[in-house]
Amino acid sequence: MRAAIFRNGEIIVGEMAEPTPGPGQVLVRTLACGICGSDLHARQHAHRMVEMAKKTGRKPMDLSRDVVFGHEFCCEIVDYGPGTSRKLKPGTRVCSLPALVTSQGIEGIGYSNDNIGGYAEAMLLSEPLLLEVPNGLAPEHAALTEPLAVGVHAGAKANIRGGEVPLVIGCGPVGLAVIAALKLRGLHPIIAADYSPARRALAVQLGADVVVDPRVSQPYATWAAHAQMSEAEKAARPPFQAMLPALKPAIIFECVGVPGLLQQVFEGAPRDARIVVVGVCMEADRSEPMLGIMKELNVQYVVGYTPEEFAASLRLIADGQVDAAAMVTAEVGLDGVAQAFTDLANPEAHTKIIVQPWR
Amino acid sequence: MRAAIFRNGEIIVGEMAEPTPGPGQVLVRTLACGICGSDLHARQHAHRMVEMAKKTGRKPMDLSRDVVFGHEFCCEIVDYGPGTSRKLKPGTRVCSLPALVTSQGIEGIGYSNDNIGGYAEAMLLSEPLLLEVPNGLAPEHAALTEPLAVGVHAGAKANIRGGEVPLVIGCGPVGLAVIAALKLRGLHPIIAADYSPARRALAVQLGADVVVDPRVSQPYATWAAHAQMSEAEKAARPPFQAMLPALKPAIIFECVGVPGLLQQVFEGAPRDARIVVVGVCMEADRSEPMLGIMKELNVQYVVGYTPEEFAASLRLIADGQVDAAAMVTAEVGLDGVAQAFTDLANPEAHTKIIVQPWR
Repeated sequence: MRAAIFRNGEIIVGEMAEPTPGPGQVLVRTLACGICGSDLHARQHAHRMVEMAKKTGRKPMDLSRDVVFGHEFCCEIVDYGPGTSRKLKPGTRVCSLPALVTSQGIEGIGYSNDNIGGYAEAMLLSEPLLLEVPNGLAPEHAALTEPLAVGVHAGAKANIRGGEVPLVIGCGPVGLAVIAALKLRGLHPIIAADYSPARRALAVQLGADVVVDPRVSQPYATWAAHAQMSEAEKAARPPFQAMLPALKPAIIFECVGVPGLLQQVFEGAPRDARIVVVGVCMEADRSEPMLGIMKELNVQYVVGYTPEEFAASLRLIADGQVDAAAMVTAEVGLDGVAQAFTDLANPEAHTKIIVQPWR
Repeated sequence: MRAAIFRNGEIIVGEMAEPTPGPGQVLVRTLACGICGSDLHARQHAHRMVEMAKKTGRKPMDLSRDVVFGHEFCCEIVDYGPGTSRKLKPGTRVCSLPALVTSQGIEGIGYSNDNIGGYAEAMLLSEPLLLEVPNGLAPEHAALTEPLAVGVHAGAKANIRGGEVPLVIGCGPVGLAVIAALKLRGLHPIIAADYSPARRALAVQLGADVVVDPRVSQPYATWAAHAQMSEAEKAARPPFQAMLPALKPAIIFECVGVPGLLQQVFEGAPRDARIVVVGVCMEADRSEPMLGIMKELNVQYVVGYTPEEFAASLRLIADGQVDAAAMVTAEVGLDGVAQAFTDLANPEAHTKIIVQPWR
């Protein structure tokens, strides 16, 4: 079968053996797979991912061997391995969170030498993790379940009590998924910041009420302008808080993930802000703890999603509650993957590119 | 009057004018004042405190002018300024959080050119902030209200739900106050780590159940050994958590405040740990966000206390619910302050030194 393979730091198209489903596993034909920012990072800084996997006790990639990336996929059932209940017929379209149950335990899909990711014509999934795609949803949109689940999870971990005013820093796929999740939770107004006009337009489409170009206005000042307490809220404050600025609670979602960003958030954040770090910064980072201390900031790092959040995300897209399709800016075949990795560097041109291995 | 003055980077004893109470203010005789780790830091790195005050929008010290440190004090009322209700008689012993209401607004006491701190024979306080010392409590012990309040506040901001197993890193006055606060909240077992045998003994006295010498055993391994879930807790977990280590929730209190410490906590912390940063690190710090991300850590920075927490801390000491007196390892006069700053560098010899300006 054909695949876009990560080999010696490059993405090349090549042939590889179709995998054979083991016990509890399912052979699927890969219909669509989104390209994630982490894949771009993995191509450029693969050794850093290896280091981090070791540090966090996960199985690292062996960079001397082939890897097929791709962890945002929608597939079609082809065949079942032994010990499966085969409840879904071959031809059924399915999603799954990117994990495979093997005889070695649970392993990841997408950054593994052994488990082929979505940039290939076929892959293996685990039967208990399969979710049938409902409502005749297109595979290209069902493939957005995974990035949406990241936003849904971030919203859940933000410990929202109601009444907070959110600020989303960065409107790439992660920021957009967060905006969609916040909209569903009824937060209002949602403020979002990005340098790219195209990304700001998408932010509005996904549910942002106010968008900010940081070149033109300071995101934290814009946030404050939209976070003024009502007179009733002012009156309800304990006496010792009466001397503080009368601002509603802030939740800031860091959806960029580059060194220095957290320090910027520390500098801009109002007192008592809660910061949810959804952007994945793979390098060591520097910040001034005194800013966190003097403002009593809270930082919640998040990653991934629960199986329930993943399943809920598929339903949200299928029911039309989230316009995830708005994120898709291009569809490419396996031959277009390498170029797509390059193209994604321009936020004006692209947000989410979907790989269709059979295109 | 006499004072131990911070001048040109040194602590010297000198004469200065006794202050005159303005509207709403009270002239007090300072009976006892604890030396805080922040005072030691301010003497060595005063310019850093100035920078940080500017960054966080507070009035910085002018280092070309005299400053009298000391923000953990117990005093005796001498005289009242205009516009005061004079409910407490002269001679009454009082504590106050270190803030002064002036015509300019609320200002800090202890790191100010204008508002004299506790290392002097007299100072000004604000009448509305005065708390009468109950139960004939000795001034040297009432002066421990402020450091205890730091621990009480950290315990409150830790958002304890019950069932957590706390790990306290560093058993200086801050760590000890945290231990006392956790004991009062009924958490069990409390694990505490410090290199100093004297500090570990104090930790036990204040309520730690298990103490660790990091030279001998890894604090996080000791924590894990005491944080194993019961069979009932294991059974109550959602299915997708069943593959994770069966550990009770972790709350880690970082009570050291030096660069590199947070990264150590990130490395050692179990998944989903909540980290409360109580130690005051005044320098920029470096950590690997990926560790926070992969473990979904939460970091709550804290500082200070509310007026209610301050008042509660005084009552806890006066009622004998916290053996704060155990922390006091020496009492000195104004002439002994400079030497005390040096002596406090040895954790085996000293924990809290109380200045008695009239000694």
